[in-house]
Amino acid sequence: MQPLTLINGSATRTLASSDRGLNFGQGVSTRVKVVGGKPQLWQEHMRLLQQGCTALGFHINAVDKLVKRDLGLLPKADLSLRVTLTAGLGSNDLAMPAEYQPTRILQIEPCQYSEPLLDGISVRVCQTQLSKQPKLAGIKHLNRLEFVLARSEWRDPVFAEAVMLDTDGMLVSGTASNLFWVSQSRLFTPDLSFAGIRGAMRAAIIRLAAQQGIEVCEVRQPLAALADAEEILFCSALEGIRPVKALAQKQYAVGSQTLTAQLQSGLSQVLYD
Amino acid sequence: MQPLTLINGSATRTLASSDRGLNFGQGVSTRVKVVGGKPQLWQEHMRLLQQGCTALGFHINAVDKLVKRDLGLLPKADLSLRVTLTAGLGSNDLAMPAEYQPTRILQIEPCQYSEPLLDGISVRVCQTQLSKQPKLAGIKHLNRLEFVLARSEWRDPVFAEAVMLDTDGMLVSGTASNLFWVSQSRLFTPDLSFAGIRGAMRAAIIRLAAQQGIEVCEVRQPLAALADAEEILFCSALEGIRPVKALAQKQYAVGSQTLTAQLQSGLSQVLYD
Repeated sequence: MQPLTLINGSATRTLASSDRGLNFGQGVSTRVKVVGGKPQLWQEHMRLLQQGCTALGFHINAVDKLVKRDLGLLPKADLSLRVTLTAGLGSNDLAMPAEYQPTRILQIEPCQYSEPLLDGISVRVCQTQLSKQPKLAGIKHLNRLEFVLARSEWRDPVFAEAVMLDTDGMLVSGTASNLFWVSQSRLFTPDLSFAGIRGAMRAAIIRLAAQQGIEVCEVRQPLAALADAEEILFCSALEGIRPVKALAQKQYAVGSQTLTAQLQSGLSQVLYD
Repeated sequence: MQPLTLINGSATRTLASSDRGLNFGQGVSTRVKVVGGKPQLWQEHMRLLQQGCTALGFHINAVDKLVKRDLGLLPKADLSLRVTLTAGLGSNDLAMPAEYQPTRILQIEPCQYSEPLLDGISVRVCQTQLSKQPKLAGIKHLNRLEFVLARSEWRDPVFAEAVMLDTDGMLVSGTASNLFWVSQSRLFTPDLSFAGIRGAMRAAIIRLAAQQGIEVCEVRQPLAALADAEEILFCSALEGIRPVKALAQKQYAVGSQTLTAQLQSGLSQVLYD
């Protein structure tokens, strides 16, 4: 199949230039991995989208039903699906109008998904720091400039991801994935009360760890916490779990004996709900 | 005339849904007041746009010539012109591709501009605080969610604007205008190194004050600085200078004897370059 875009259920690639998603970034988006026509982490994605809309001051009734109906138009194939919901049309002013028409964008691309990565990626540390905004922290909204600036810091393909800190120097995430690390058999992940995005895969891993009897701690910790870690992993809905083998001159444990591998092999249990 | 939109010089109202302006807010915009076909603060606007593109990691050659050419298509009337420049098409990934096509959007509306406001507006203080991001501070980019949230805090038309603080509680701006205040014959305005937008009218007022022999200080000060002020004003390219008559139970000086009125009457000297 060719890449396909559906806007409010219709096959079109253009939207109104006065959309509040463009003018203000007033919208949320998420990337969904679809395997053989079945979307993974469906409930998580839909919950995050619905919560995001509310936090950004607009409402869409039953997001999950709308997107599910769109999905019915697609072939039962392996796809990458980006769902974007914006406050849409109504006013070019900052103030939300009483009446507005939200915009629902599905960008669909055929995708060949690879097997889980076992041997690990090399990552670096970004200089661009994430600002602290408790009112927007956690939401996958369209104000992504900080991540664009962070991703522009390197072109060397040796580095598959990079660690981002907030402006207090506390760990937040990667540029396009969430971050976990293992220390003394416990799993740690940054607290996202001030910055960062709560991805669907992050929620799934926290759920899976609980099922496997692994203690998970959401913490505000500086970069030094990674130097003391035994394992590090990045995760996203499309890439799954990616172990880190190297960060800042330090090597990390990868391979079948790691807690990361244990999470990877259990992941299939939590992908479909 | 009817409202008109020009995208890359052509009359159309739609743009590609994969534009980086939508996906990431990777773009800048400004509102220009056009009187009888003549744009005000032209050099300031073009300089701010050009600087903004560079800061956001994309380049457009000779922005001023491109927009001037677009303006040649418009009637010689009183208009409100919103110019938006985005990194455009090239990739849906965070990383900027080597090749990309920027998008230039002009949204033009007929406008009836009123005389300068002399008797003052009432304003309030926003609870939503602006996050601190030195890499983006000052730029009028499309990541405007914090301002949308701030503007959603009130509907009472008694309040024409609101004072915004950063997450340290320091003065930044209004929700859609820049902020100045007068204390002991000196003009103060927030330092925008950490948050806020450097609007074209702000730059013009700083220039005008220098011409009038008024000392201007860019400062990082808490809200309390306004309680001690004698005059407060908000400014923007479309609204000009608006004196504040009331903020948080306190009344402020307005009228012909004020330094604000002196700036208003001198403004015409710096509007056309």
